[in-house]
Amino acid sequence: MLVVMKAQATPEEVQAVCDHITQLGFRAHPMPGAQRTAVGITGNQGQIDQGNLEELSGVAEVIAVSKPYKLVSRDLKEEDTVITFPGTNATIGGRDLAVIAGPCSIETREQAFAAAEQVAAAGAQFFRGGAYKPRTSPYAFQGLGEEALKIMVEIRERYGLRIVTEAIDTEALELVDHYADVIQIGARNMQNYSLLKAAGRKRKPVLLKRGLAATLEEFLMAAEYVMSEGNYQVILCERGIRTFADHTRNTLDLSIVPAVQRLSHLPIIVDPSHGTGKRNKVIPLARAAVAVGADGLIVEVHHAPDKALSDGAQSIYPEQFVQLMDECSQIATVLRRNIPHGIELTAGVKA
Amino acid sequence: MLVVMKAQATPEEVQAVCDHITQLGFRAHPMPGAQRTAVGITGNQGQIDQGNLEELSGVAEVIAVSKPYKLVSRDLKEEDTVITFPGTNATIGGRDLAVIAGPCSIETREQAFAAAEQVAAAGAQFFRGGAYKPRTSPYAFQGLGEEALKIMVEIRERYGLRIVTEAIDTEALELVDHYADVIQIGARNMQNYSLLKAAGRKRKPVLLKRGLAATLEEFLMAAEYVMSEGNYQVILCERGIRTFADHTRNTLDLSIVPAVQRLSHLPIIVDPSHGTGKRNKVIPLARAAVAVGADGLIVEVHHAPDKALSDGAQSIYPEQFVQLMDECSQIATVLRRNIPHGIELTAGVKA
Amino acid sequence: MLVVMKAQATPEEVQAVCDHITQLGFRAHPMPGAQRTAVGITGNQGQIDQGNLEELSGVAEVIAVSKPYKLVSRDLKEEDTVITFPGTNATIGGRDLAVIAGPCSIETREQAFAAAEQVAAAGAQFFRGGAYKPRTSPYAFQGLGEEALKIMVEIRERYGLRIVTEAIDTEALELVDHYADVIQIGARNMQNYSLLKAAGRKRKPVLLKRGLAATLEEFLMAAEYVMSEGNYQVILCERGIRTFADHTRNTLDLSIVPAVQRLSHLPIIVDPSHGTGKRNKVIPLARAAVAVGADGLIVEVHHAPDKALSDGAQSIYPEQFVQLMDECSQIATVLRRNIPHGIELTAGVKA
Amino acid sequence: MLVVMKAQATPEEVQAVCDHITQLGFRAHPMPGAQRTAVGITGNQGQIDQGNLEELSGVAEVIAVSKPYKLVSRDLKEEDTVITFPGTNATIGGRDLAVIAGPCSIETREQAFAAAEQVAAAGAQFFRGGAYKPRTSPYAFQGLGEEALKIMVEIRERYGLRIVTEAIDTEALELVDHYADVIQIGARNMQNYSLLKAAGRKRKPVLLKRGLAATLEEFLMAAEYVMSEGNYQVILCERGIRTFADHTRNTLDLSIVPAVQRLSHLPIIVDPSHGTGKRNKVIPLARAAVAVGADGLIVEVHHAPDKALSDGAQSIYPEQFVQLMDECSQIATVLRRNIPHGIELTAGVKA
Repeated sequence: MLVVMKAQATPEEVQAVCDHITQLGFRAHPMPGAQRTAVGITGNQGQIDQGNLEELSGVAEVIAVSKPYKLVSRDLKEEDTVITFPGTNATIGGRDLAVIAGPCSIETREQAFAAAEQVAAAGAQFFRGGAYKPRTSPYAFQGLGEEALKIMVEIRERYGLRIVTEAIDTEALELVDHYADVIQIGARNMQNYSLLKAAGRKRKPVLLKRGLAATLEEFLMAAEYVMSEGNYQVILCERGIRTFADHTRNTLDLSIVPAVQRLSHLPIIVDPSHGTGKRNKVIPLARAAVAVGADGLIVEVHHAPDKALSDGAQSIYPEQFVQLMDECSQIATVLRRNIPHGIELTAGVKA
Repeated sequence: MLVVMKAQATPEEVQAVCDHITQLGFRAHPMPGAQRTAVGITGNQGQIDQGNLEELSGVAEVIAVSKPYKLVSRDLKEEDTVITFPGTNATIGGRDLAVIAGPCSIETREQAFAAAEQVAAAGAQFFRGGAYKPRTSPYAFQGLGEEALKIMVEIRERYGLRIVTEAIDTEALELVDHYADVIQIGARNMQNYSLLKAAGRKRKPVLLKRGLAATLEEFLMAAEYVMSEGNYQVILCERGIRTFADHTRNTLDLSIVPAVQRLSHLPIIVDPSHGTGKRNKVIPLARAAVAVGADGLIVEVHHAPDKALSDGAQSIYPEQFVQLMDECSQIATVLRRNIPHGIELTAGVKA
Repeated sequence: MLVVMKAQATPEEVQAVCDHITQLGFRAHPMPGAQRTAVGITGNQGQIDQGNLEELSGVAEVIAVSKPYKLVSRDLKEEDTVITFPGTNATIGGRDLAVIAGPCSIETREQAFAAAEQVAAAGAQFFRGGAYKPRTSPYAFQGLGEEALKIMVEIRERYGLRIVTEAIDTEALELVDHYADVIQIGARNMQNYSLLKAAGRKRKPVLLKRGLAATLEEFLMAAEYVMSEGNYQVILCERGIRTFADHTRNTLDLSIVPAVQRLSHLPIIVDPSHGTGKRNKVIPLARAAVAVGADGLIVEVHHAPDKALSDGAQSIYPEQFVQLMDECSQIATVLRRNIPHGIELTAGVKA
Repeated sequence: MLVVMKAQATPEEVQAVCDHITQLGFRAHPMPGAQRTAVGITGNQGQIDQGNLEELSGVAEVIAVSKPYKLVSRDLKEEDTVITFPGTNATIGGRDLAVIAGPCSIETREQAFAAAEQVAAAGAQFFRGGAYKPRTSPYAFQGLGEEALKIMVEIRERYGLRIVTEAIDTEALELVDHYADVIQIGARNMQNYSLLKAAGRKRKPVLLKRGLAATLEEFLMAAEYVMSEGNYQVILCERGIRTFADHTRNTLDLSIVPAVQRLSHLPIIVDPSHGTGKRNKVIPLARAAVAVGADGLIVEVHHAPDKALSDGAQSIYPEQFVQLMDECSQIATVLRRNIPHGIELTAGVKA
């Protein structure tokens, strides 16, 4: 259920509505919009009396939401969600596209800095690098853990790049939340509901990757899990689905970008690296992702992909990343969008 | 097996090689390239003696082709195949992108002309319209048949648009070959080998749609069936594959475009209408198809989609087609390609 | 629409109803049942007046059929369709299970007889063997054609086995209809509607294989195509669908057996050879097919699979076929069904 | 790498080999077999010197294992793993099939006891019931948690049934390990590696469900994660994969049963309830699962499925479960296997 406040409703009236909902044993999710605030109600303890809510001061109307997703829905919030990164000009979900780039795994300080320097020079605003790697084999390289997180903090200090990295469990989540700027939840964990709820209790933005066999509704419901705990900064990410097609590692489903944008106010970005699994297909699919209307890209870049400890075959060379940025910037312009060249730090705020 | 002729080999020498191959009981497929001619050898009657071939005058080398597709392969022909339409500036496979547009089915002369006028005005060079419709139900509208073909001939005469239409069986093939400019083989018939071979015996270009469950190799092998009969003008078309995803009718697999372009010299275009099945996703996916590097688009346009006898839900309005042409043209420019605005008839040649 | 006749309606009354329907421009399909006859009406020329039909003599009621399939449906015919083979005790669709066995392709007279002798000895009633092979490559062995059909006629004469073989196009259909007992339509042709309609104009039973990406509804609609032309003897066949799973060539979808049996009166059999593509999985999946309730099996048996010209990897040895028959017979008993041991020719009728 | 001990090797020699491996920084996994013990070596710290190992007393040979799974593989352990439940005659993986039955969720004490009484009477040895439910929606019933676990302990005390229930995260794992007999890891968590490793540190058997998009290799690697931590009692479970087919909720892939049995010594059971999602398909697919050679079944049974808080549509009625047990028992006999009728408690041991 959804309570739409009047345009002129005061913060106190919004608060009173939230308190009323809480007293009834439900959870209130106020979502300020350009025109007015809506308050989402969640909880599964039974039916709520719509009449009483409509009587409260400042309430315009009460709407039943029939879709299984509530907070994710454009019914609740018509405007696009724009995620900001205080102290910088970086955003995700607005007119500017977000480009997140870096190696699959942080392997050494040198390797990480080599990649970071080049992606920063090419204009990326975000740096990705795996500290905790979910690997098919228990005997494969599992990531450097906290050491990798500390290296990425140094990279943020040096280059200003905001840090995106995956939390594979609740333990890693605490550290990722402490060190990084965006908490990534991987495709294999898209329906790890305990992890989603734990991420929902953090206040850092969450980058949620689509599961390999997830329908659109399941994908949105996974985001709803995060939001239901009070963290409304969710970035969706298409990274390929599993099909019979064998010319790529996964089949990148770009049609989900406009599909998400119709139903939800959340930003959605695309991962052409995992989405294809092949270096020679990353640039074409990155261009296609921008052309389809994605809000950003997450791309694997490695200075020496042949020596990468993981995912070398799908990592592009730094010079390819320069080409990718150039071509994607031009395509963004056609859609009246923009890829900012590099991050700018706001005066007086530490990067 | 593949015979590469010397750069200075004469037409007589090429002919002599072909004759020799034919005498051995195989089939010779000469493929002229920018630098030199290669001659593909097909036939399954056993092994051929490589030494004798190498001794023939004008032969540079003889190469064994290990891939299952021979004539389709870039090994045989390095340059992109460019299909021309005599008497016009239209091409498929070169720097210019081909845009094929029109209604799913030809329903009436009026409906067909209404669509044709608008797609011609918006700059399309090719007109599509179903005369024979492969429908899931035997009780659904099956197309107007030859009557529809005649209407499309009138459209070609009026607007200059080249005609693309599907042949669903060998009987329809004769008529389509007679009236149309491009013979379309539909997705359901991608492995109807008798039809492929019959189309291979025609000399009109063949537009071959990928089957709903076809791998890249099966797709290329279907083209090989057409080419093995001597028709080398094949245009491949991605139109969506069947997956678990339910937010679109099919899942458009854009990654097959660069995959085909690596392996084959044949042009590949994209059908965002069948590929999504939803009107609101056609323009975004058309943009993405151009951005990924496709050689053209085939799009369903209907002046009154709600009244269409077939596929109304995925047909775009004429004004949307104008927008599509505009946005796709700009994206083509980024890739240093071009969408020509409308067809031009060469002086002295009847359209 | 469906006209249910009274239990005591006379053949003349049924005929009068059919004539009335025909005069209205529709097609009448009388389907005799155990209790009474129903008459299916097909044709897409618009609406029919239900009232007039109900007034006809002998009519019990007129029912609108909302499903897209009409003749295929149990709504039209409640009892299972049982296909008989005159002059023999063989049936498909009744209490007895049908076992169809033989090599993928007829390669030589000797090979065919070797396989036939062994499958006959093991108790099969039907012999399968490809005369026309739909192969992925145009350069692969395409079958012996009419010569293979003649060899199979000899096999029928010698062993009494009824002959099942594929028709890949309308030309082959004429010959298959002439020589064989069951016309097989392959998976790749499941939506080759021209071929389906041509098979519907024959009077031999049609074995229709499910397409690799066909939904249940599409599968039933393909059968409807055959039936809409007047051939009501259709046998459905599950042979595996295309999925991401790579431990088998296809994924055998046994759940479609009870799904078909709920909706349709047609028999459904299972092909564990194509369904798995691996010899060592044929027997377990054959057992499972019988246990799930299939009306029969079609199995590839070759006396020397390693030398087979096609599909050797999935062909079982004759001694494995003996084991298969033994185990499946026992499981059939659990379901109160029976696998007859060999074909019996009725006295006075030539095999 | 794999150290095969001589048949007459002493326990001390085996221990010495394990100690040597441990000193080298690897992990040793001794696996006693009928003839002799093999010791698996895991760890990713680089290469090991094969020569030194072969010199150790009691060592027959040292074998390099090329497959990505080591402990899961039949290379390491030729005999089937049989899991026993001390104090009872129940086993999983031997000649006897294991039948696990009960409601999707424990909703109330009464509902749980009603189901338990009936499945016990019908002969099941194991009781399933969800305490922690992974639900697509955060607002759906999430299970009673520890209260449900306590109810199931009462059920074990009353009926002797061994308890199988899912652990959705490491917190739930502690409680499930404390109260239940088998720890279930759900399909959505099949690649939740942190949870797999935590389950690997427990000593209760782990029932691992195949993920909706998991290949055979990924499935085995997930089991390898559990085993690599020292818990060798893993039961695999096929529960349907995600495909385009829409007549069932998932597509039950029975071919994975013989595929697993070739490669691995671990038992594999089948879940026809989730595998089909439809009550009317549970019994046929349960029969098929036994016929294909599965080592057991896990089935949802509810005394009033229409009122179930979760998965009612796929839960069978108790009387259907009686039929299932009867038919499956008969089919098991054909495969020379057995479904024991009910659990027996060994004298002197508390259930």
